[in-house]
Amino acid sequence: MTGALDLDTRLLRDALGAFATGVTIVTTRDESGCDIGLTANSFNSVSLDPPMVLWSLAKTSQNWEAFKKAKHFAVHVLGADQEWLSNQFAKRGADRFLGVPVERGFGEAPLLPDCAARFQCRTAFTYEGGDHEIFVGEVLGFDDFKRPPLVFQRGKYAFAIKKPAVRNPDDASDIGANFTKDYLGTLLAIAHHQQRAQLRPALESRGLDEEDYAILSLLIVADHRDAAEVDAVLQAAGKRLHESKLQKMAESNLIVVQSEERAGTRLSLTEHGRLTIIELMAAAKAAEADAEMGLEFGESQILKHLLKRVIRSTNSGPLRIWRGRGEST
Amino acid sequence: MTGALDLDTRLLRDALGAFATGVTIVTTRDESGCDIGLTANSFNSVSLDPPMVLWSLAKTSQNWEAFKKAKHFAVHVLGADQEWLSNQFAKRGADRFLGVPVERGFGEAPLLPDCAARFQCRTAFTYEGGDHEIFVGEVLGFDDFKRPPLVFQRGKYAFAIKKPAVRNPDDASDIGANFTKDYLGTLLAIAHHQQRAQLRPALESRGLDEEDYAILSLLIVADHRDAAEVDAVLQAAGKRLHESKLQKMAESNLIVVQSEERAGTRLSLTEHGRLTIIELMAAAKAAEADAEMGLEFGESQILKHLLKRVIRSTNSGPLRIWRGRGEST
Repeated sequence: MTGALDLDTRLLRDALGAFATGVTIVTTRDESGCDIGLTANSFNSVSLDPPMVLWSLAKTSQNWEAFKKAKHFAVHVLGADQEWLSNQFAKRGADRFLGVPVERGFGEAPLLPDCAARFQCRTAFTYEGGDHEIFVGEVLGFDDFKRPPLVFQRGKYAFAIKKPAVRNPDDASDIGANFTKDYLGTLLAIAHHQQRAQLRPALESRGLDEEDYAILSLLIVADHRDAAEVDAVLQAAGKRLHESKLQKMAESNLIVVQSEERAGTRLSLTEHGRLTIIELMAAAKAAEADAEMGLEFGESQILKHLLKRVIRSTNSGPLRIWRGRGEST
Repeated sequence: MTGALDLDTRLLRDALGAFATGVTIVTTRDESGCDIGLTANSFNSVSLDPPMVLWSLAKTSQNWEAFKKAKHFAVHVLGADQEWLSNQFAKRGADRFLGVPVERGFGEAPLLPDCAARFQCRTAFTYEGGDHEIFVGEVLGFDDFKRPPLVFQRGKYAFAIKKPAVRNPDDASDIGANFTKDYLGTLLAIAHHQQRAQLRPALESRGLDEEDYAILSLLIVADHRDAAEVDAVLQAAGKRLHESKLQKMAESNLIVVQSEERAGTRLSLTEHGRLTIIELMAAAKAAEADAEMGLEFGESQILKHLLKRVIRSTNSGPLRIWRGRGEST
């Protein structure tokens, strides 16, 4: 334990950051009629009857006097997509309300739109809190926009996802069933195959197969690829690039196969090939929209983010080819 | 907006739930030497110099008097895996400390182990807050266990994941490269194939291929399957179950193929087949551990949870077979 005599402010701040919070913007109008607003995560609810909330503000804040004198303020709980607004209202010197349409609330306090929830308050108490002042407001009105909120944790913005139900340990009776249900590899396989199944009609109607799709996909990332590179990717998927496949794709006018003395065999998209893969990608995007139907806002971003991390941690080499040229990871 | 005259307590509570919080357990020792503790999410930091935190407690709480009189209390910010502790300290009538090893802190307040962070406080102020009392504590000591915290949001436990960096819209120059980077289908394909590539040595050393693995995996979930069912799964992955494959697996003593008059062709694992797939699953688990290396605690759970949701939303039928018999989704 870090004891009373040696409290290190930086370490304390870190430890306090372990408590996750939402992010709010608190606004008011000062005596001269100027709109004031700042980002705060010290908000919390206090009382339901009467309805009360609180937040605290550093006494050294340039806005302290305005809030100390204000009879009303408004608290905006920010939505998951409002990181930019949080940053804007934390900036020094800038016009924080720039480009933000405001409505007027109690005491003419500026109200921001499109947040997760919004509380209009009458200042009920201000309390001593060390280097901060604690403002307790009675809630006079509120709006709940039902949007997923922005989260702040350990000094970083975060997105909260409902915890999956805790698994009943008694379920562990059948090793096989649980393995398929909880093994990441199986889930990836099923998700991948279902996703691909949705693309199949688009492939079949063009007389194409999965391999054609994979090859065209690689070429649209970076054209004029070495056939050996493409083969390496197919190998990672347990397949090989056969001469006959290249011949067939060339005959269908999808690709041009060039044998160069030094550079080996190079594959390039034809215009028809380029249009075909763009159409297929559109079909794939539609399939993706279906897959994401079951996900809430932000969850698909998180899913992709986690998949990328898995991909990085299992990347043993050949699949780096999925990247375009000259990119770093 | 819901205005002052018609504030609905239930709606207000919902709206306040839009502000995400961590979850804490606050403890103290009452005058008679009894340990007191309760779950609270009204915690927040107030001041750094002097170090101060606050939380609030309903005046109707059976613990109100003990905290009102206490000179010291401790706040434990719970970790992501401590949902059970949160529930235990929110239960009425139960011995909340049952099975929880406690240490002693300032004022003999009980300290719980293994949380995300812990703050030992001297009661500095108690303030009026409507139906709640606000307790402000001066932090005398703290521990930061650096564990990912539990989150509470909209009345549910949640897990917070750092937001992926906001993508630079200027990246969108190359349609192909961005498609492969951000298309869920491509990410699933790469993640799946990389994962599978790690399993390949274990398959090859046994003279097996991906199809053998898929078939054996299905049979360990539910043995004695109809071959047509297995074929349906392979079809979803773009393959077919050929007679020759069954014959070869039977010759390798992995499965028994029985043709039954009414039930069609049924496939069952031999003892050798059962041992083989269990060994392969162990290899797969090892590959999974590698894949999860890049993920923090809880993130792999979230990844699996999201994959399951994608699987459900894209499930057009045949892959229900992945489930064991007699299960609901």
